[in-house]
Amino acid sequence: MWLRTVCDLTFDIEVPTPFILMLRLRSGAQQWVAREEYKLKPSIPVFEFTDNYGNLCQRLTAPVGVFAVYTHADIWVADQVDQAPGDPFIEIQYLPDTVLSYLLPSRYCESDRFGQMASDITAGQLLGYDQAKAIESWLRANISYQPGSSNIPMSAVEVNTKQSGVCRDLSHLGIALCRSLSIPARLVVGYLYGLVPMDLHAWFEVFVGGRWYTFDATQPELRGGYVAIGYGRDAADVAIYNQFGPPVHSTQQFIDVQLINENDL
Amino acid sequence: MWLRTVCDLTFDIEVPTPFILMLRLRSGAQQWVAREEYKLKPSIPVFEFTDNYGNLCQRLTAPVGVFAVYTHADIWVADQVDQAPGDPFIEIQYLPDTVLSYLLPSRYCESDRFGQMASDITAGQLLGYDQAKAIESWLRANISYQPGSSNIPMSAVEVNTKQSGVCRDLSHLGIALCRSLSIPARLVVGYLYGLVPMDLHAWFEVFVGGRWYTFDATQPELRGGYVAIGYGRDAADVAIYNQFGPPVHSTQQFIDVQLINENDL
Amino acid sequence: MWLRTVCDLTFDIEVPTPFILMLRLRSGAQQWVAREEYKLKPSIPVFEFTDNYGNLCQRLTAPVGVFAVYTHADIWVADQVDQAPGDPFIEIQYLPDTVLSYLLPSRYCESDRFGQMASDITAGQLLGYDQAKAIESWLRANISYQPGSSNIPMSAVEVNTKQSGVCRDLSHLGIALCRSLSIPARLVVGYLYGLVPMDLHAWFEVFVGGRWYTFDATQPELRGGYVAIGYGRDAADVAIYNQFGPPVHSTQQFIDVQLINENDL
Amino acid sequence: MWLRTVCDLTFDIEVPTPFILMLRLRSGAQQWVAREEYKLKPSIPVFEFTDNYGNLCQRLTAPVGVFAVYTHADIWVADQVDQAPGDPFIEIQYLPDTVLSYLLPSRYCESDRFGQMASDITAGQLLGYDQAKAIESWLRANISYQPGSSNIPMSAVEVNTKQSGVCRDLSHLGIALCRSLSIPARLVVGYLYGLVPMDLHAWFEVFVGGRWYTFDATQPELRGGYVAIGYGRDAADVAIYNQFGPPVHSTQQFIDVQLINENDL
Repeated sequence: MWLRTVCDLTFDIEVPTPFILMLRLRSGAQQWVAREEYKLKPSIPVFEFTDNYGNLCQRLTAPVGVFAVYTHADIWVADQVDQAPGDPFIEIQYLPDTVLSYLLPSRYCESDRFGQMASDITAGQLLGYDQAKAIESWLRANISYQPGSSNIPMSAVEVNTKQSGVCRDLSHLGIALCRSLSIPARLVVGYLYGLVPMDLHAWFEVFVGGRWYTFDATQPELRGGYVAIGYGRDAADVAIYNQFGPPVHSTQQFIDVQLINENDL
Repeated sequence: MWLRTVCDLTFDIEVPTPFILMLRLRSGAQQWVAREEYKLKPSIPVFEFTDNYGNLCQRLTAPVGVFAVYTHADIWVADQVDQAPGDPFIEIQYLPDTVLSYLLPSRYCESDRFGQMASDITAGQLLGYDQAKAIESWLRANISYQPGSSNIPMSAVEVNTKQSGVCRDLSHLGIALCRSLSIPARLVVGYLYGLVPMDLHAWFEVFVGGRWYTFDATQPELRGGYVAIGYGRDAADVAIYNQFGPPVHSTQQFIDVQLINENDL
Repeated sequence: MWLRTVCDLTFDIEVPTPFILMLRLRSGAQQWVAREEYKLKPSIPVFEFTDNYGNLCQRLTAPVGVFAVYTHADIWVADQVDQAPGDPFIEIQYLPDTVLSYLLPSRYCESDRFGQMASDITAGQLLGYDQAKAIESWLRANISYQPGSSNIPMSAVEVNTKQSGVCRDLSHLGIALCRSLSIPARLVVGYLYGLVPMDLHAWFEVFVGGRWYTFDATQPELRGGYVAIGYGRDAADVAIYNQFGPPVHSTQQFIDVQLINENDL
Repeated sequence: MWLRTVCDLTFDIEVPTPFILMLRLRSGAQQWVAREEYKLKPSIPVFEFTDNYGNLCQRLTAPVGVFAVYTHADIWVADQVDQAPGDPFIEIQYLPDTVLSYLLPSRYCESDRFGQMASDITAGQLLGYDQAKAIESWLRANISYQPGSSNIPMSAVEVNTKQSGVCRDLSHLGIALCRSLSIPARLVVGYLYGLVPMDLHAWFEVFVGGRWYTFDATQPELRGGYVAIGYGRDAADVAIYNQFGPPVHSTQQFIDVQLINENDL
C-alpha cells in the first residue's frame, strides 16, 4: 500500500539548543520512499550522519524563537507484514555479527532480569518465532496498553511492575523477554496506518530464521501499514529527537498517516 | 542557493537485469535535501544500503521492457564553495582513519605513477591547499576539457597521454597527482548549476587543513552550485548506475538543474 | 612502561554454552600490543568480529566439561595518562559523529536523571575538562569504593542511592553525570598496574578538547599503567564475557599485571 | 594444522617516512591466532585502525636510520581449504551488502574489459563455484607462474597480455574474470605453508553459495595451510606496507612458515 506520512514538530526555544533529530525515513526491506520532504523554519545549517544502527540523523542548533520541523513522505509498505510460524531459533554461533548487539541488555530492556519469566511464558513453544509470538500474546493479555499515558520511557522492569504502558513500554518488555531467551530483539519507531489515536508508534522486531520479523502487542493482530523511521536497542537509541541543554518540549506535534493512490505520487 | 535537480533515466531491458543505482542525494556539510522524489516505472521492489563511502545505493532487478527512473530534488547548497589558500598539508600520521583509503592508487587513478610530475607541477608551492590549486590550474591549462567526448572512463595515465577528456577524466588525473603528493583526494559525482551543456558532472575534493575542499578544472573558476550525489576513490566506486549482465545503456537521459526560490519548495 | 598482563578464566560447563568473549587487546592511542597469547583448552573453533565500538570479540560455543581461556600480553602503555586542565567543552554541533552515541543514556547510565546534580557538583567550573575533574573528585569524596563488593553491575541511580560500589559502579555514576552536561563519556574495562587488590578494572573516559581523557575515581590520583581491553557505553556493552543460556560462572579467575623490561619481550 | 609464521622487514630510512603497515593477523572463519608478536626497532609510537575491508592497519612514522619490523604468529588453520563443486551463483539481489563492492572494477582488476573472455572460458559450466574453478584451471594452464619475477603489481589486462606473472598478478586476472561474470571476488595476501620458494603469497577468494571460497592458480591443486593477513579488492588495497614520500624499499625481508605442534604453543 502507498501511504503519506506527516510529522510536524514546533518548539519554543529560549536559548540556542543543540538537537539530534531522526526524521529522515530510509528505504528498507519492505519499505520504499518515493517522495520525501524535510523542511526547517527558520532554515538553518544541518549536518546529517549515519548512526551505529544505520539510522540517518540530523544535527543542528535551534535558534531562539519558534523553531519548526516539517517532514512528509510518500512511501510504499507491505499490505501485510511477513509472519513465519515455526521459523527456527538461530544458534548464537550462526547469528550475523551485526545482530549480536541486540542480544545484550540495554538502558530500558534489562534482559538480565527476565530469564525465568520468559521461560514460563514460552513453555512448550517451538524455539524461535513461536516463542516471540507467545511473548507478544502474553503482553497483549497481561499488560494494559494505554496510549498517551506517559512521556518518559519505562524500562521493562518498570512496565512489568506497573502492568501498563504506552507502545514503547510494551515493546521494551517484549524485547527484554526475547533477549533473555537469546533471541535478538530491537525497537522500531515509526508510523502505523490506522493507529487510533493517531500518533507516532513503536513496536519490536525479533531475529529468527535468518531475518527480522515484526511484532506489536498493542494491536489485536498483526497487519500491514508499518512505516519504520528508526531502529535501535531501545528508546534510548531511537528517539525522533534528542535535545541537549535545558529541557525543551515540542509545543505542537502533528502526526498523520493517509492512504494514497500510486497515481497521486 | 536553492536548486531543483532532475535526473531521469530510461532503459530498454531485454533480460531481467540487476542494477545498483546511486541516485539518492544525501545531506552533507554544505548541502541540505529539503525535498526529494525517487520513482520507478514500473514500480518494483528495491533494497537500499549504504556503501563503504557512505553513499546510499539502491539495488533492484529491472524487468523486461521499458524501465524508467525519475529522481528530483530541491536542495540548498552554498552560493560559493569554500576555498582556503595556505591551508596546510596534514601529515599522514594525523589524518583521520577514514581518509586514509583516499591516499591509495585506485582503478582509474594510478597515483603510483605520477610522483615526479606532481612535484614538478607544484614546485615552490606551500604544502597543502596551494599544491592542489596548482594542480587544478595545470589541468585547466594543459588538458583539454571536451564534454561529451567519451563514455568509458579514462584512467589518469590515459588522460595524461591523450591530453583531453570529460570532467571525470580530468578529475582522475587531478586525484592521481594529489595522491602522489600524499594528499588524500576523491571523486565526486553530482550536478553543477549553470553547467554548459547541462549534464551530470564530476569534480574532485582534496583533504587539507582538516577538511575536504572542492576543485574543478573544467570551469574557469570555482563558484557555488555544486550538488554532490556520491563520493568514491574514482569512477569505479561512484557510478550513478552499475548494471550486471549483458550491457544495457540508457536510451534516454534527462538532466536538469534550476534555481528556485525558497518559497517555492 | 612495558607491562605483562594475564587474564586466565576457567569455567565448568554443564551444557554446550555460547559465549562472546572480549579479551583480545587492541593497540590504540597510548597503547601498543607487542606480544599476545590467546589460548583455549580444549581448542575449539572461534569466530572473531569487531563490534560497534571497535572492540574485537570472540564467539564460540564452550563444550561440556572444564573450559579454560588463557590470555597474556606484553604491552607498552604511557607512564602517565594525559591530563588537560582547562581543555574546553566541545559544542554538540562540532563533535565527531562517532562520539555522539556516548551522549545518550544507556543501560547503567541514566543520564536523563542527573541534570541538576551534575550542575551542582560542577558549579563554577570551566566547561569541559574541569567539569569532569570536579565530578571525579566528587565521586572520590562521596562514593565509597569497595572492591569486590558486588558481581552485578549497578546503575548510576543505584550507585547514587547506595553511596558505594566497585570500580564499574563508580564509573557508571561518573559517566551519567558527565553525559547529563552534554559531555560524551564512556566506560573502559581493562587492567591497572599496581591495583590493590589485583583484579580487572574499570574506569571512564570523557571527550573534551577534541579527544578522550582518562578519569578514575577509585584511585587517589591519576597515574599511568592503564591497559584498555574494551570500550562501550557502559558495562552492558563491554563485558569480558557474555554467556547465553543457563548461567555459568567462572570457577577460577586469575588476573595479573607485572612490570617488564623491554629487553624481556 | 598449527603453523608458526614469520615476517621480518628491515628498512634503511633517509628521511622520516610515514608508513601504513598491514601485518597484524586477525582471526577469521578458518583461522585462529593463538600467539602473536609485533615488535618495532626502534620502538616508536604506532596508531592502529581498522580499514574498510576489516583489516587491522598500523600507522607510524619511521625515524631516520635502520628501522625493523618483526612479526611472528602461532596460528591454527584448516588442513584443507573448503571446496564446493556445484555451489550456486548468487543472484546480485541476494548478495549481502558488504560483498557488493567486490563486484566492481578496481585498480588492478579491470573487470569491465573481460566479459567475452570469461564467458568463453566458462562455457558449459554450472553457474557459480564451477565457473570460478574453470577460471582457476584456465589460469593454471595459460598463464605462466613465475615467482619473484616482478615487484610492481600488474593489472589483469597487463597479465593477460604478458601471459605470465607472480602470484598477485595471476590473482588479479582471476578476480577480473570472475567479476565480469558478476561473481564477487577479492584478493587475499598472506602465507602458504610449503610454498616454494618461501615468500609472502597472494591468492583469491570468490563468493558463491553464500560464502567465500579459496582459489589459487599458482599451485597444482588446492590444499590447506593458507594464512590470511589481509583482504581487499586488489593489491592497491592490501599491501603489507604502504610508504609515503620518497620511495623506500625493504633492504631485508625474511618470511617463514613452519609446522608446529599444538603442545609447543
